Amino acid sequence: MARNLLRAGHQVVVHSRTRAKVEALVAEGATAGGSAAGVAAAVDAVITMLPDTPDVEAVVAGPGGVLQGARAGLLAIDMSTIDPGAARSLARRAQERRVDFLDAPVSGGEQGAIAGTLSIMVGGDAAAVARATPVFAALGRQTTHMGGPGQGQMTKLVNQVVGATTLAAVAEGVALAEAAGLDREAVIRALEGGAAASWQLSKLGPKMQRDDFAPGFMVRLQQKDLRLALAAAARLGVPLPATTVVHELLDRVERDGGGALGTQAIVGALRNRGR
Amino acid sequence: MARNLLRAGHQVVVHSRTRAKVEALVAEGATAGGSAAGVAAAVDAVITMLPDTPDVEAVVAGPGGVLQGARAGLLAIDMSTIDPGAARSLARRAQERRVDFLDAPVSGGEQGAIAGTLSIMVGGDAAAVARATPVFAALGRQTTHMGGPGQGQMTKLVNQVVGATTLAAVAEGVALAEAAGLDREAVIRALEGGAAASWQLSKLGPKMQRDDFAPGFMVRLQQKDLRLALAAAARLGVPLPATTVVHELLDRVERDGGGALGTQAIVGALRNRGR
Repeated sequence: MARNLLRAGHQVVVHSRTRAKVEALVAEGATAGGSAAGVAAAVDAVITMLPDTPDVEAVVAGPGGVLQGARAGLLAIDMSTIDPGAARSLARRAQERRVDFLDAPVSGGEQGAIAGTLSIMVGGDAAAVARATPVFAALGRQTTHMGGPGQGQMTKLVNQVVGATTLAAVAEGVALAEAAGLDREAVIRALEGGAAASWQLSKLGPKMQRDDFAPGFMVRLQQKDLRLALAAAARLGVPLPATTVVHELLDRVERDGGGALGTQAIVGALRNRGR
Repeated sequence: MARNLLRAGHQVVVHSRTRAKVEALVAEGATAGGSAAGVAAAVDAVITMLPDTPDVEAVVAGPGGVLQGARAGLLAIDMSTIDPGAARSLARRAQERRVDFLDAPVSGGEQGAIAGTLSIMVGGDAAAVARATPVFAALGRQTTHMGGPGQGQMTKLVNQVVGATTLAAVAEGVALAEAAGLDREAVIRALEGGAAASWQLSKLGPKMQRDDFAPGFMVRLQQKDLRLALAAAARLGVPLPATTVVHELLDRVERDGGGALGTQAIVGALRNRGR
């Protein structure tokens, strides 16, 4: 994503706990910010992309964080997937510092991040969304303003419910097709032509078939997202029985040591009955 | 499907228990066959498209059925979705009468049947598949030869597992989005741009949102297909936990009187907790 911003002609100041990542981007034209506060002090818009809610809370609102370094009028865009309530709270705290905060999580996988074809789901003030347009244009193919603070995250949780359960749909189909001795490529091709077609089928079905479990999107991050989604659904009184089963299947993958594998490793939980 | 055969220039002889359907097609240029045996006696290739396994067994192999009227060399194509074992058995019985039998179920919904864009999954002898090519070309956009007798049906069951569970994925997402107050069109658009994209999302998500439960594909037929799929999976030792949950959700729709609704009515089982 930083590379796509550089390619689009933006000046990019970067920070990460992992030095090697910073150095690689500096070699490609970025500047090292030294800290989250240091980045925030140097730019018009700061982007956070972090694993989980506590990480974003610390990096945005904690000591040495974005809000500490921010000038009035900074645009703070969190593209992580976090709890919608936490995003609303961060937006309020940012507003107290006269910083515009957007929750802008993404979908499209590692491939979409690299290709700059992400779908970006944004919550926050419309004027701030307009200011962020050049940034989003460099990162994604499509930006959808979903409403006020937190509604980008809420949309992402809906996306994760649909995406993860579609993933399980594909995995159950792949496991059944294997047991029935159906030709791998032919079965994917036949399904792609009809009502079972999906992004998950086309992108992850073939990887399941050849045991290619390298992550795209890691099981443990998918699980974190599903925990957020199931918690949000419980608060709203919406039962998610299929998603709950998918969460349990991925839990089995994690307990078998597969937390750092790609989500397509879910097929392993279906191949061997009684494990 | 009969209309698409007429449009492609085939001479079409039709039979149905429902007289009005026959009369409508006769008005458009078809001939009435009077019975399944009567159709089979008049044509080079006969197509059956019926609700369930016993219907196909009766119409193909029963009294007054296709095999009774068949000349040697007839091509009998069953495009229904039935038990793969029953399809293999019908292929054997047809062979005894020197009739070539293909199992050739389809996916793509009512829309795909009308538009002639179905995906056709075929099991049977390669020479018979080649003979059927002009017929398939009039009905579908894509024909995939999946193997010997029964393997078209097995592929269709895989298709139904993936399609029905993807449907449930969309329904859980729609129910969550509604409870969270997200804009209908925006949420579908945002999800279509990323890893949650699917045929079910684009075609049935908007229908769920506006309570349009007119069938495309009826709940009770989806349930019949899932029963076949779960039985095949059990025989093969493949657990299908997510599909099992989907089958239970659709069972609730049926028990609430929704068996003749479209499959998108599944969203009703998720909206009202504790029903």
